[in-house]
Amino acid sequence: MTKNVYSFGGGKAEGSVELKNLLGGKGANLAEMSSLGIDVPPGFTITTEICNHYTSHDSAYPDDLAAEVDVAMAQMEEIMGQPFGSGDNPMLVSVRSGARASMPGMMDTVLNLGLNDETVVALAKASGDERFAYDSYRRFIQMYSDVVLGVDHAYFEDILDDTKLRLGVSMDTALSADDWKDIIAQYKREVEKETGKPFPQHPREQLWGSISSVFESWMNNRAIVYRKLHNIPQSWGTAVNVQAMVFGNMGEDCATGVCFTRNPATGENLFYGEFLVNAQGEDVVAGIRTPQPLTKEDKIAQNSRMLSFEEAMPDVYVELCKVREVLESHYKDMQDMEFTVQKGRLWMLQTRAGKRTAKASLGIALDMQKEGLLNKQEAIMQINPHQLDQLLHPMLDPDAEREILATGLPASPGAAVGRIVFSSKDAELWVANKEKVILVRTETSPEDISGMYVAEGVLTSRGGMTSHAAVVARGMGKPCVSGAGDIHVDYNNKTMKVLGSVYNEGDTITLDGTSGEIISGSVPMVQPELTGAFAELMEWVDEIRTMGVRANAETPLDAKTARKFGAEGIGLSRTEHMFFDPERIVHMREMILAKDLEARKVALDKLLPYQRKDFTELFEIMEGLPVTIRLLDPPLHEFIPHGESEVTAVAEAAGIKVADVKARAEELHEVNPMLGHRGSRLGLTYPEIYEMQARAIFEAASDITIKGGTVEPEVMIPLVVNLREFEFFKVLVDKIADQVKAETGASFKYLVGTMIELPRACLRAGEIAKSAEFFSFGTNDLTQTTFGYSRDDAGSFLDDYYANGILTNDPFVTIDQDGVGELVILAKQRGDETRPGMKMGICGEHGGDPDSVEFCHRIGLTYVSCSPYRVPIARLSAAQAVLKQG
Amino acid sequence: MTKNVYSFGGGKAEGSVELKNLLGGKGANLAEMSSLGIDVPPGFTITTEICNHYTSHDSAYPDDLAAEVDVAMAQMEEIMGQPFGSGDNPMLVSVRSGARASMPGMMDTVLNLGLNDETVVALAKASGDERFAYDSYRRFIQMYSDVVLGVDHAYFEDILDDTKLRLGVSMDTALSADDWKDIIAQYKREVEKETGKPFPQHPREQLWGSISSVFESWMNNRAIVYRKLHNIPQSWGTAVNVQAMVFGNMGEDCATGVCFTRNPATGENLFYGEFLVNAQGEDVVAGIRTPQPLTKEDKIAQNSRMLSFEEAMPDVYVELCKVREVLESHYKDMQDMEFTVQKGRLWMLQTRAGKRTAKASLGIALDMQKEGLLNKQEAIMQINPHQLDQLLHPMLDPDAEREILATGLPASPGAAVGRIVFSSKDAELWVANKEKVILVRTETSPEDISGMYVAEGVLTSRGGMTSHAAVVARGMGKPCVSGAGDIHVDYNNKTMKVLGSVYNEGDTITLDGTSGEIISGSVPMVQPELTGAFAELMEWVDEIRTMGVRANAETPLDAKTARKFGAEGIGLSRTEHMFFDPERIVHMREMILAKDLEARKVALDKLLPYQRKDFTELFEIMEGLPVTIRLLDPPLHEFIPHGESEVTAVAEAAGIKVADVKARAEELHEVNPMLGHRGSRLGLTYPEIYEMQARAIFEAASDITIKGGTVEPEVMIPLVVNLREFEFFKVLVDKIADQVKAETGASFKYLVGTMIELPRACLRAGEIAKSAEFFSFGTNDLTQTTFGYSRDDAGSFLDDYYANGILTNDPFVTIDQDGVGELVILAKQRGDETRPGMKMGICGEHGGDPDSVEFCHRIGLTYVSCSPYRVPIARLSAAQAVLKQG
Repeated sequence: MTKNVYSFGGGKAEGSVELKNLLGGKGANLAEMSSLGIDVPPGFTITTEICNHYTSHDSAYPDDLAAEVDVAMAQMEEIMGQPFGSGDNPMLVSVRSGARASMPGMMDTVLNLGLNDETVVALAKASGDERFAYDSYRRFIQMYSDVVLGVDHAYFEDILDDTKLRLGVSMDTALSADDWKDIIAQYKREVEKETGKPFPQHPREQLWGSISSVFESWMNNRAIVYRKLHNIPQSWGTAVNVQAMVFGNMGEDCATGVCFTRNPATGENLFYGEFLVNAQGEDVVAGIRTPQPLTKEDKIAQNSRMLSFEEAMPDVYVELCKVREVLESHYKDMQDMEFTVQKGRLWMLQTRAGKRTAKASLGIALDMQKEGLLNKQEAIMQINPHQLDQLLHPMLDPDAEREILATGLPASPGAAVGRIVFSSKDAELWVANKEKVILVRTETSPEDISGMYVAEGVLTSRGGMTSHAAVVARGMGKPCVSGAGDIHVDYNNKTMKVLGSVYNEGDTITLDGTSGEIISGSVPMVQPELTGAFAELMEWVDEIRTMGVRANAETPLDAKTARKFGAEGIGLSRTEHMFFDPERIVHMREMILAKDLEARKVALDKLLPYQRKDFTELFEIMEGLPVTIRLLDPPLHEFIPHGESEVTAVAEAAGIKVADVKARAEELHEVNPMLGHRGSRLGLTYPEIYEMQARAIFEAASDITIKGGTVEPEVMIPLVVNLREFEFFKVLVDKIADQVKAETGASFKYLVGTMIELPRACLRAGEIAKSAEFFSFGTNDLTQTTFGYSRDDAGSFLDDYYANGILTNDPFVTIDQDGVGELVILAKQRGDETRPGMKMGICGEHGGDPDSVEFCHRIGLTYVSCSPYRVPIARLSAAQAVLKQG
Repeated sequence: MTKNVYSFGGGKAEGSVELKNLLGGKGANLAEMSSLGIDVPPGFTITTEICNHYTSHDSAYPDDLAAEVDVAMAQMEEIMGQPFGSGDNPMLVSVRSGARASMPGMMDTVLNLGLNDETVVALAKASGDERFAYDSYRRFIQMYSDVVLGVDHAYFEDILDDTKLRLGVSMDTALSADDWKDIIAQYKREVEKETGKPFPQHPREQLWGSISSVFESWMNNRAIVYRKLHNIPQSWGTAVNVQAMVFGNMGEDCATGVCFTRNPATGENLFYGEFLVNAQGEDVVAGIRTPQPLTKEDKIAQNSRMLSFEEAMPDVYVELCKVREVLESHYKDMQDMEFTVQKGRLWMLQTRAGKRTAKASLGIALDMQKEGLLNKQEAIMQINPHQLDQLLHPMLDPDAEREILATGLPASPGAAVGRIVFSSKDAELWVANKEKVILVRTETSPEDISGMYVAEGVLTSRGGMTSHAAVVARGMGKPCVSGAGDIHVDYNNKTMKVLGSVYNEGDTITLDGTSGEIISGSVPMVQPELTGAFAELMEWVDEIRTMGVRANAETPLDAKTARKFGAEGIGLSRTEHMFFDPERIVHMREMILAKDLEARKVALDKLLPYQRKDFTELFEIMEGLPVTIRLLDPPLHEFIPHGESEVTAVAEAAGIKVADVKARAEELHEVNPMLGHRGSRLGLTYPEIYEMQARAIFEAASDITIKGGTVEPEVMIPLVVNLREFEFFKVLVDKIADQVKAETGASFKYLVGTMIELPRACLRAGEIAKSAEFFSFGTNDLTQTTFGYSRDDAGSFLDDYYANGILTNDPFVTIDQDGVGELVILAKQRGDETRPGMKMGICGEHGGDPDSVEFCHRIGLTYVSCSPYRVPIARLSAAQAVLKQG
């Protein structure tokens, strides 16, 4: 016989945290606490499997369930010494849901169950508080009728309001026991009117009605939507917890409270919490009464005049401190607990890992290691790498006021304050005048890069987490809020409309890229701290991790940031970003508009010194660490402007006709630029571009070498599909290297390798590795082509994919292991076979995503490369990956 | 020791056709003929491996080569009874290239080699024709100096012209032996002046100079370009053939000619050819003299007054007839031969498979089978499936005059005559007035489909063989010339400019989609014959092939054509093409512009009857054969016009604001529509569209069933990436089927399957097959995503890929077996594992390409589906695939 009901209480339990999937989080922790000898009100958990049975068997239960519940109820009665539904001191119970993952407020709860016209009288006597008893009864009727019988709670509120009006009182507390009796009578009439049946008096009927309602609520709309949003499978089901009621509102020797074993905001090892005397749990949360501090120390810190729990109930406080110790050393994690004191006796109602800020998370893990509670490995595993992000960007002062205008997607973390501008050109103008700006666009394109570069932050009204704006901003470590649909940009008038209000160019706003909030005016900021606990943790993770971590960086600022965050090299330097500087874009356009090879070479010769300087700077900053440089990748039309006035300006600057510029732009236009004339395809048509870039790289390498430095550039060819294509470029790059070596007399090493970013490149990796000296998986493009999803356009349909459970993650954020991952593994195997021990990394956005980093470690990549600000996250994730693998 | 030189002549040979790769085509066939006892002038072949050695060793030869050549030369001298370079009757030789693949005119040739101041005197005596001897000598000097010494032939032409001017004659034939002697003296002075050395008198020096020049010419620019264009690898190299000279110009008992064993135009089993008395081979080709017919029969047929070869040299004719018989029965193929008669003796100079028209190809293969020369299998193998295409489309009368305006790409075969129009709308207007039109566009988009549909043919000035215009036209079986860069379309003035001339709307042109020619005016046409030899061949191939052949078709006309050509079902019916009819597009747009689900459903309800009628017609025409219907695939913006006036028209028709239409179009705009909101992604966002289509399919199936017909629709979901996505639609389609069955009481079977057209779908095919009942490989999209090539944009760079040998085929024409093919194989294996014997087909453009069809057969697909006009090609290719597999 399958066991469907697990009892707990009285210092023992049938379940444990090991059975979390079967008992849900709440039930498993109640069982665990009970086993630890902590007083929890006795009860039992009906398993999540019964939930699945219930939903798949037309709301029916297995035959033996009722008998199991009876046994468990009898056990509760014995422990409490109170019979359920009868006697002088009747036991009341609560019925609550408890799923594997926390789903706060999504499902139903029934309290005070077991009350009826008889037991309420006994409760009144036993508690010595008639008012309390009838108030509890009316609350039960109201809750049960709403949850189980489907009677709208508005009816009951009307009755209550009418009665108070009639009696001329405004507060519930002013109502006497007799008033409640009168109200109860009205409630019961209303229930009979609505349901055609009297309110159920039989406690067993009440119990089963409530259990079924909780199981039903697993399939209510609210819960379904929540599950979709949080990727919780329906098949997990919920458990049901039936537990004896204890009351914190039975008098002045009663209390209820919540506490954390350590401070969840700062991480300090101080007991932290609040409580209320003579109150129910919900009163603490509801905020009607101001809760009192837990400890004397806190009382002083808060400058509070209220009694602390330590003072008010010193004996119980000592007990609670013991519970704190037991639970923390048992769970080896900071706990969030709920307790009730009923007539001087402490009952623990819940414990779970406490939510905490990133700062607290770091502090707690390190402290626990020092206290001997955790070893280094355990401490490292306790930190959520996603959360680490918060620590690495300037943050808005959490205590400051925020007037939130609208909310978009938290596309690139950090905060930015600035005056709004609506074009790249304006951004540059304002910045030239020493103003800080926020660039606001409907969406961004590569033309906007110069503006993004000078702006403090970027705001777009369209585009997802992986839109151009989001990706580029993350790459720049610049805060970005994307896809803020409530913002309407009017380029002509240089204004944006937000829910009726108009903001003009020059108005100041604040962006919170971590929350997605757009805030009016300037909010004060807090700078990140990279020393202390953070530095210590990073030392630990570096001892453990085996995979390298590099950064994607092209500007000196990026490269410096990358080193500051511990990058061990540059895994992707996107040379195209170097061409958007106003001085250079002129020559770039001259090159694109050139009529022939001769003219193109003239323009390229002008770009050469800039590129050489770029690389020299990068090499100097990276001081001998590897630097991977990708040759020009985007289609040329990204460098040609489209607006009428800009076209005219370009034509004038280039000394050619406007019509010719337009004709060239038209010629370069593509239906699907992502699949168009870019990457190696450009290099094949215009080898002179790649020659210029290779020359700039090697001349820079020569300079460094001659000055006594070391450098080992890794020249990377994007977008190849087979060996012959790669070899075309290998020959070209080697030729230039030989030329430069001959010219300068310098001697330096270099590698020539390729991005593996197309399915065909993965399939042909074995042959490509014959010539390619390293691989870098470009998982952004590989995801686009493997799924057939345009990163720029997928926003319009991916939500439907999550909502329908077809995809559980954004494949542009976390690598799709089943599809893209299989191709990466295959390419790695084939590459390794040809060139054992080949250097292979990943340089897509996935390089900074913890789950993806774990995948990269598991399949044996040499390194991951991510945006500078994500380097610490990748380092931590890489260490956790080692520990997970065991 | 490697053998580098292969002798032939005197009824034997060291080589054979088996060694074609080593000896080149010419050398191998000379050896073969010699072994067959046919008189060929003796000679030898230096292998292609020496060519590679020569190019890779700085123009040096292996040490032992000279000795081998000496042995071979001695053998020639013995057979001819003439010493090389001395004696009374000196042997002269020719030095010619001969690569594995024919490269006509690309490389160098030297004739009459061995002549010098001494041997010319002997030749004069031996031939009894002094003029002939000195003419030969001066020709040799001219050719050798040009080819070997690099002296521009213009110098020699000047000398000849000056001499004729001085002598007052205009024809070479008027020059005497003495005149030639004088010219020779001048030639030699010129050579010495240009090269600083006298013209080489030593025959061995002449021989090696010529051999080296031929090897050199393998790397000349002309040859390199030719190889690139014809995908001939450089590594193949060329062989060099040195052969004793025979002369057809030594008198009236000499002649030279070319002949075919059968008529290459009609295929009739009649000896066919032409010849000239007292002439050299080049004279026949040069067209200075009119050649005489070979046979008496031909003479009569041509109404010629000239003597036939049969009459002029009856004995030699009999010999030639014997050669004809020997060669044809030996090669089992129609041969193209060259011969020379020197003083009454027949020498064969060359034989090779003769080029022939499609009609001849078919006729010859069938005749040869009847004659017992070939069995059915061999006859089938002899027909080039590519060529079959010519037979299936109306053709321009090959005898008619053509005034060719310009040439584009032969994008869709067949010929069309019509008046030019420049928009879909105008096409419809003119056609409504009973005019035949040719739609001329810069490039086409889905908006042009209605115009393409009514036009006779389509002409675009941009786009490749796989551009929208090309693909859609081939699908429609409509002639199309694409990418005609000399055509400049002016939409505003409704004109096109072609190399300076202007053509107005309404002017008549003719398109030859088979050659890519654009011809002024109306060229008469010839209709295809599908009976006789064609029908017989098709019977044979159907007996042999094991793989099914279906057609891609959506209109009744397409479906009828498909059946006429032997399609065994429809493998792809693209429902979107059904929405472009003017009556329907209105409702389609209404649907797209609808503000909510309700309004969308109203519009869809209007489309339902049209779709139902479409499917009913298709099912009726296909009479129980399987019909695969793909639910809506393209992004919605393809249905929304972009021009100002069209937008206004749509807004008026839909009763909404112009601004709203524009806003919706803007909303639907995508950066990369190929990777955007289309296919299943549309179906997920707007399930009501797929519901309407499923309903139309099943209502049509009910109608047919109730009338006593049979039908088994195969409903196909495009673009899925995993099982859950497919299941969403499986549930939807099944639900509608159940509803329709319940409503109509009809009972019918159907399948629900999916396109496998994305790399991820291939990888996940195993799980998708759990629910999908069939797969259809959409290799167009799969090629786009596997390579990361946009079909619409790749034209701008693919030529560079061919030119550099990175790709050898257009992957959109012939399936890329190494990349896309591996994914298809993998998907098939995974699908088979889950659902053994699963029905799997291919419905991309590749379904009509012979190499791709062979691939599909080899990997075990159930069927290929191609455009109706390619069905016979696919049937033949499928049979050939069986035979090739053995």
